[in-house]
Formats: sequence, structure tokens, C-alpha cells
Amino acid sequence: MSSEARGVPVVGMAGGGQLARMTQQAAIPLAVELRVLTGSAGDSAARVIPGSTIGDERDAADLSAFAAECDVLTFDHEHVPQPVLRELEHSGHTVRPSAAALEHAQDKAHMRQALGAAGLPCPDFAVVSDAEEARRFAVRLGADTVVLKAITGGYDGKGVWLCPVDELVSCEAFAAGRPVLAEELVRFERELAAVVVRRPSGDVVAYPVVESVQAEGICVEVLAPAPGLPTAVAQAARDVAVGVAELLDVVGVLAVELFATADGAVVVNELAMRPHNTGHWTIEGAVTSQFENHLRAVLDLPLGAPDLVAGPTVMANLLGSDAPALHANLASVLGRDPGVHVHLYGKQVRPGRKIGHVTVVGEPGSDVDGLRHRASAAVRGLRGEGGDDT
Amino acid sequence: MSSEARGVPVVGMAGGGQLARMTQQAAIPLAVELRVLTGSAGDSAARVIPGSTIGDERDAADLSAFAAECDVLTFDHEHVPQPVLRELEHSGHTVRPSAAALEHAQDKAHMRQALGAAGLPCPDFAVVSDAEEARRFAVRLGADTVVLKAITGGYDGKGVWLCPVDELVSCEAFAAGRPVLAEELVRFERELAAVVVRRPSGDVVAYPVVESVQAEGICVEVLAPAPGLPTAVAQAARDVAVGVAELLDVVGVLAVELFATADGAVVVNELAMRPHNTGHWTIEGAVTSQFENHLRAVLDLPLGAPDLVAGPTVMANLLGSDAPALHANLASVLGRDPGVHVHLYGKQVRPGRKIGHVTVVGEPGSDVDGLRHRASAAVRGLRGEGGDDT
Repeated sequence: MSSEARGVPVVGMAGGGQLARMTQQAAIPLAVELRVLTGSAGDSAARVIPGSTIGDERDAADLSAFAAECDVLTFDHEHVPQPVLRELEHSGHTVRPSAAALEHAQDKAHMRQALGAAGLPCPDFAVVSDAEEARRFAVRLGADTVVLKAITGGYDGKGVWLCPVDELVSCEAFAAGRPVLAEELVRFERELAAVVVRRPSGDVVAYPVVESVQAEGICVEVLAPAPGLPTAVAQAARDVAVGVAELLDVVGVLAVELFATADGAVVVNELAMRPHNTGHWTIEGAVTSQFENHLRAVLDLPLGAPDLVAGPTVMANLLGSDAPALHANLASVLGRDPGVHVHLYGKQVRPGRKIGHVTVVGEPGSDVDGLRHRASAAVRGLRGEGGDDT
Repeated sequence: MSSEARGVPVVGMAGGGQLARMTQQAAIPLAVELRVLTGSAGDSAARVIPGSTIGDERDAADLSAFAAECDVLTFDHEHVPQPVLRELEHSGHTVRPSAAALEHAQDKAHMRQALGAAGLPCPDFAVVSDAEEARRFAVRLGADTVVLKAITGGYDGKGVWLCPVDELVSCEAFAAGRPVLAEELVRFERELAAVVVRRPSGDVVAYPVVESVQAEGICVEVLAPAPGLPTAVAQAARDVAVGVAELLDVVGVLAVELFATADGAVVVNELAMRPHNTGHWTIEGAVTSQFENHLRAVLDLPLGAPDLVAGPTVMANLLGSDAPALHANLASVLGRDPGVHVHLYGKQVRPGRKIGHVTVVGEPGSDVDGLRHRASAAVRGLRGEGGDDT
């Protein structure tokens, strides 16, 4: 019998990475049939989802054939080209978030222009074609350093350059000969993320605002909620995220990465319209995970509670090291800490690649440093870096 | 590349029901490759586990071929015949729990004899061949009613008869012409379940003892922990379960269903050696779910913490009604209670069949009646029984 005949909703996800993989954990209890279109049967999500379609999720024909089998199409990443997305919508497929919304997660200049025009807090910015235009932007700001970003395609610190004005002429940002986004360097105290989920009807839930600890442009740790964050700043961050979701008519998860400055302001750094690394803690730490709420949202089902289940929660990313034998290290990590949650993505291990994460949920009032210590010890253990907890 | 070459452990499960399905949720984060051998690609677990093997999991040849592809074989149910299990072990396959242990979950007479001989608390019992032998057993007890049980194959109230002594001659229990187990009718105040998990090394973790609320021999609700249970009774129940696990050398989840009597005693009713209905609440309510701990145990990995994540937790079973349109009712159920966790098993709906469950996790100190009310309202909503919460 076809799944349609059983009345089971079918959600198709373009891309088969760890986000699709973790979405399967949420799809199982809801009896939502999750399908992925991905490049290889060995991809992270394809290993755990039956009947994955092997193909190119950026290709109009492959994606159109895939979407025809699904009630709704959603995304593991933001790399499906706009013309493909527009064509799918034009053909009558349900695409969530929409092509128009997704464009703001794909094109940083487009995002800055839209948010800036709506009065949402952003760094000062300009689209520049070369080093000379970037220099003039810096002079206008009175800045000795600017941030340059590839307008499309950057991730995890790639496609971002912090450049002193007198070195602009040799900055790699201009090597491709394409316009780049020049931004004011925001002097921030810490980085926050506000994850919200929105239904087509407009209902929104907002997870507690988290602190995202970065190293070399990669998120290494998430503290939920952001420790000691003044209520007014948390509210401002949430308001910005809800504002962005409404402005851009986002459906599904929207993660807004923000800079928090010393004077209590929040400034939008990046957007993502899919389950996001800063929301992985919700699997164990929140009543409803971001993955379940993403599914509910794209199916236009009522959203689940985003509240903490217990106390503060810490998530630490596991980045690939030169020691690939993850499972060989699992026993000692689990043996040292019976409360740690290990997530392995089933991906080939490469140095620096996100291949898993660990989560530790504290009791109400738990000491966050203690939780960070446990999460970090587990990550080091999985990387084969020994049992020394100090 | 084969999974073995990637160093990923492969767990094979005989049977593809909801227990295997929920085990997949736990296998994904651990990057354990879970495979099932089951009768149909439409079975509950086969819908969510790639590459399921279709075959007869009670057949020696099918099971042996399946086991050869797995590092360890474990079970969704207790219906694999003893000779098949023994042959698998003889062929060198790793079977957990072992054939010798499983026999006690398959054969109620065998279980009563073993537990009785070890001094574990059981009802008085006798294996009887006919009504006259059952009558003599009742006379010996001085009882006017006895419990008769099919020695093998009973479940969910099937294969159990409560029979007045003067009606024994017409009792259906003897219709098959096979010996049955006659037991003392235990006058209990309530039913408890103690779920423990044991590794091959002997390490054991014990979940909080729960109360199991039954209707017509089927568990309809589980209250975790059992409300108001005296510490001494909880400890006694846990001790019995750990004692059974050690006595029988169980590996994996062992669920011991118990009667609690007015004088504070606990008496063993039934055993199961697999994830059990009375442990479903652990998915959201405990730090480590019974499904994850079952996987850890059969792979001889250290066990996870069995403690409550937050406060009391209530699980209610969803039994099939005449209204099969589960997904049509999902929106209203989720809309009425953003904190309820719905689990649908992807099974064909038949009246009385277990087709899902719901779980509500309370804050520490929550009123259990309030949680029961929410769980019950969600179940009625899924059954299409309207939105009246009273």
C-alpha cells in the first residue's frame, strides 16, 4: 500500500547530511515518512532512512521528480539554486521555506538589504566589487579593519575574511573577481543564537536564546540558555529572530546568529532556514526538539513547547581529528560519564569536519562550567585524546 | 564500503515491531547500524530502517543468514523457538540475551521453577494437565479461584484465565489439551514494573520502579515513578529485578512485572527480556532510554544513567479504535497540548491493537493526576473521541 493511501504525510528533504539524519529521529515517533534526495547511499542521512533517492539535489529534474513523491519539500542545506526552487514552486510543489524566504539565507547581500530596510539591527555594510571600493567603505566607517564575506556559498568560517584596510589589495576575498559583502567589524562580547520555528499560519515558537562559542569561525560549543544573559538582551534577541521570521515569511526553523555587544545591543550576523547547529541541544534539552518542530512546521501542524526540559544544557561539537576510530573510543567515553549523550553522524572522518556532537543536560541551577567540562571531556575522549579531564 | 570496514557495530534484531522501530531512534545517534529480520517490508520497524531483511525470524535458515551479517543478534519479541536459538549459539553467533536466559521469558513454568528455587517471590504455582489437577491445586491453597496461564505464547491478557474452582471443567485453558500453569490469585493493591538493564560484564542499571495500570490484561498507562511508593517497596522491587537478571544471566533490558500487595510485599508476575511497554516513558522521561541502554548492553558498552530527566512522567498506550485516521487527529491533539509527546508506530489500525503511545513529562513535584489527564486526553484525541477533557 502506498504511504498516501495510509494517510501518512511524506516530507522530502533535499540533501542527506546530519540534519536530515537527525530529522529522522523526530520523524519516527510522528510516523511522518521522511525521504531524502542525496548524492550517495553512503551519506549520513541515507544510512538511516529507507528508500533514499540518489541524485543531485541541486538539479531541477532530479529535484522535481523527488518533490512529486512528497507532500512537502524542505532542506538539509541552502545550496539549491534559486531558479530551481522557483521552478518547483511554479510547478505547484509545496516548498517550505519558500524560494523567496530561502534567498535571504543564500545571498548575504540580499539578507542585509532586507533586514536593514526593515530596521532590524545589522552591521553597516556595502556590496563592493574590489579592494578600492572596500577601502572607501572603511574610510566612510572610520574603520581600520573590515569584514569581507562571499555573498553566497560561505559556511563554517569559509568565505569570511577579517582584513586590515592597508592589506585589502591582497585580500583573497577579491580573488574570484566577484562582488563581496563588506561589513563593519562588530566588537562583540559574545555570540548568541536565537532559534525560532514558524508555521505557515504565522504561529511561532522561540527556543531559549543560547550562547555560541566559536573557534576559527566554527561553532564548537553551545550553552543553553546563554549564561547570565540579561532578560532584556534575551528578549531583544528573540524579538529580532521572530521579526526576521515574520518579515521573510519563513516556514520551519530559522536560526539567527547574533553578536551581543558590551552596551547590551544585539546585531544580526547570519541566518539559516533549517535545523541548525545551535539547536542540536534541543534533542535532549528541550521539550520539543528543533527537528520535530521543523517537521511540524513544514506540515503545518501545531508546534511543540520549546522550553527547557530540566536545567542548563551544553552541546559540544565533535570535529574530526586524525584518529578516526570513533567507535573504539565510545566505550571509554560512555564509561566515564553515564549522563552524556553522544551523537555520531556516520560520516567519514576528516580533520576539522563536523562528525558528531555531545550533549549534557543539567539539573535546574546546575553549574554551567561543570557541564562544559563534561561535554569537553567527552569530545576529547571521542577524538582519542585521552582520559585526562583536567 | 561495508559497515564493518567503517568500524560501525551492527546489531540485528529478530522481529520488526514497534520495539525495533523505537530502537532505531536510539541507534541513529550512536551510529550503530540496526538491521531487522521481519516478515514484511510494511512492518513497523521496516518502514524506518534501511535494508531490512524480509524473512521468517522464527526460521533457523533465515535467522542464521541474518545473524551472519550482524555483530550481535537481539530480539523484538520472545517468539524465536529454543532449538533455533540454541543452533545459532552453537554456530558461534552472539545471541543476547542468550537462549538459556530467553527460555525463562518464553516458558512460564520454567520461569516459575527457576525463580522459586532461587527464593525470589512468586505466587504459589503448579503445572497442571487438566481441570482435576487444577482443582486439587486450588484445594491445597484453600482458594475458590485460580489463575490459569498458557505456558508459552500468551501476551496482553491472551492466554490468561481467572477461573472459579467450580467452573474449572469448562475453562478454555484446557481446550488445547496441553499442560497449563496454575497460579495462586494474588490479591494485589497495584501492579508495578521494575526495568533493569544488564551488560555481559554484569553491570546493571535500574530504572525507577513504575506503576502499570491495566485494563482487561493490557497495560494502558504507566506512571513513573510509581506514585507514593514506599522506598522499601521500591527497593524490594528493584532488588527482585536485579536478582532475576543476575540469576538468569540476562543481557539487555529485563522488565519484571510485579504485584504489590497491601502488606508491602512484591510478587513476580511476568518477565520480558527486551525493551518493554513499561519502559517507553524513558524515551523522554529518563536520561537514557531503555532502547539506547538495550543497544549499549548487547554491544557490551557502558550503560547510561537511568534517572528521571525532570519530574514524574506518564505514558499512556494508544489502542486502535474503529477510527483509523490517526494523522487526521494529530493536529488537534498537538494543538491542545504543546508538551505532549506522540509516538505512532506506523501499524495498521485494528481495534484493541497497540498502535502508539503518548508521554507527558512533568516538572519535579508535578501533580501526577494532571499528567494522567493530559496523556489520557491526547490518547482520546488520537482515537477521534473528541476534545472533551472532562
